[in-house]
Amino acid sequence: MRYGIIGTGAIGGFYGARLARSGAEVHFLLHSDYDYVREHGLQVDSCDGNFHLDSPHVYRDTREMPQCDVVLVGLKSTNNHMLPRLLPPLLKEDTLVVLIQNGIGVEQDVQRMFPGTWLAAGLAFICSAKTEPGRVSHQCYGSINIANYSCPDPQPVGQVIAHLHQAGIEAQEVEYATARWRKAVWNMPFNGMTVALHCQTDELMRHPATRRLIREQMMEIVCASRALGVEGVDEPFVEKMLTMTDAMTPYSPSMRLDWDHRRPMELDYIYTRPLQIAREAGSPMPRLEMLEAELRFMQETRTPSHKE
Amino acid sequence: MRYGIIGTGAIGGFYGARLARSGAEVHFLLHSDYDYVREHGLQVDSCDGNFHLDSPHVYRDTREMPQCDVVLVGLKSTNNHMLPRLLPPLLKEDTLVVLIQNGIGVEQDVQRMFPGTWLAAGLAFICSAKTEPGRVSHQCYGSINIANYSCPDPQPVGQVIAHLHQAGIEAQEVEYATARWRKAVWNMPFNGMTVALHCQTDELMRHPATRRLIREQMMEIVCASRALGVEGVDEPFVEKMLTMTDAMTPYSPSMRLDWDHRRPMELDYIYTRPLQIAREAGSPMPRLEMLEAELRFMQETRTPSHKE
Repeated sequence: MRYGIIGTGAIGGFYGARLARSGAEVHFLLHSDYDYVREHGLQVDSCDGNFHLDSPHVYRDTREMPQCDVVLVGLKSTNNHMLPRLLPPLLKEDTLVVLIQNGIGVEQDVQRMFPGTWLAAGLAFICSAKTEPGRVSHQCYGSINIANYSCPDPQPVGQVIAHLHQAGIEAQEVEYATARWRKAVWNMPFNGMTVALHCQTDELMRHPATRRLIREQMMEIVCASRALGVEGVDEPFVEKMLTMTDAMTPYSPSMRLDWDHRRPMELDYIYTRPLQIAREAGSPMPRLEMLEAELRFMQETRTPSHKE
Repeated sequence: MRYGIIGTGAIGGFYGARLARSGAEVHFLLHSDYDYVREHGLQVDSCDGNFHLDSPHVYRDTREMPQCDVVLVGLKSTNNHMLPRLLPPLLKEDTLVVLIQNGIGVEQDVQRMFPGTWLAAGLAFICSAKTEPGRVSHQCYGSINIANYSCPDPQPVGQVIAHLHQAGIEAQEVEYATARWRKAVWNMPFNGMTVALHCQTDELMRHPATRRLIREQMMEIVCASRALGVEGVDEPFVEKMLTMTDAMTPYSPSMRLDWDHRRPMELDYIYTRPLQIAREAGSPMPRLEMLEAELRFMQETRTPSHKE
């Protein structure tokens, strides 16, 4: 099986490198790091043990890449408009494209770009970052859930999971809607609130006013999921997320990092789409709608020059 | 009629000085400015014409002040815990105390401190500031509405209004609950949102996401007022407030100034009390509750060192 990695960063770089180390054939698309990685290889500093790929298959243009059995897309969803240009050279009839991306609605939109293509969602639970050219730092966690979205055959998803297991990655197949909405329960409150209030997760959990607010925002997603008929997104799950966050070291979610580094925030898929879907289902989420408005205002009129 | 002014700042200083200029007997309580005003008098720079009171009656302790017929309280509501110490020397049986303060619930709380005292609410529509010791700058507007709260006799309120008219101030008597909730329609969204997003009124009105949010927050107050049986707080009034704000020059509400100058924000009466009253009436205001949570978090964990 041949893997292609679109977006060799904190996510694509990590999972791709682990698959390659375990013997899979992996082809990496690189952008600014191409020359460096071609010369020096790819370094992964990991809590599971550091390693280095001396001469990975690297490309700066997908037109030079071979067709793949599986494509892992690790792009930020704000770059998905590039997929119609990037993806076609890698696709065969039976290629499985796994979108390891945040938010709700990415599969629908990518399916519209590639109507016949088999899609799956990848939900990564990982703290990792690209710290310098050709270097990925993996701090903790690392598991990934895969949810079939439009593959008529269950086998390809099962095979990806088997390969991930071979690579020492904790991976399991999950139900699509439940997985996406469960992830939203954590992502929607914490991504935006750490930007709006210039803080990390621990401070939001510590102050009683924001702790209550985070819980209310999570419950808005529980209510919307119920209206949508999505199972497994309930109050016990909210409590589990709060307990998990209490146990985490202070954390800056990806949106906070994007904001701090003046990259566009993933507002469309983390907020606009799920908010619209919930509203259409008759279960609007007013606090998360307000958060979206604040973030849109910040993105379009402010810069992250605030001091802590 | 003898007037006492508690809190000779942007509000108390302005209305007190105008009453004094028109011939009323006015006694001013001063704090840090006492020595300066005793020596140099009180200066009002006003869009209606500058003037100076050469030797106003000034005090640094209310125990030295005479009993008054009317007391205008221009303190920030965050200082109302000082009233049990400040107010008693000025009170006769038939003193009318006018609370020219922001928010909802101040009269209830002050009435509890002074059960028999006659109270009225003063709702000032004015842009003014104390710019330096003994100097009040009045930029625009200046009208004041007075609402009887607990005076069994309509005469004192009428007399205050007559005196204000003599002083050239636009003043009228209004119904208490309607006046307080109408003022909340503007105050609750704009005070907090300009703090939360580090901006002025015009930017909130200009961005479509925040403009919609401000309107939704105003409509939360309309719904709560309906549940409370308060009249005159309806959608046409919301439209009027939005149109008025569009026409204003960019403005920083008092809470934004308090935040910028590291003074405590008036969260209790501008947010907590009306939010609690609305919730108890079965009409919670989720967006404004979220705003309160953000402001509490900021007040207790952040400083206004953010750059624009």
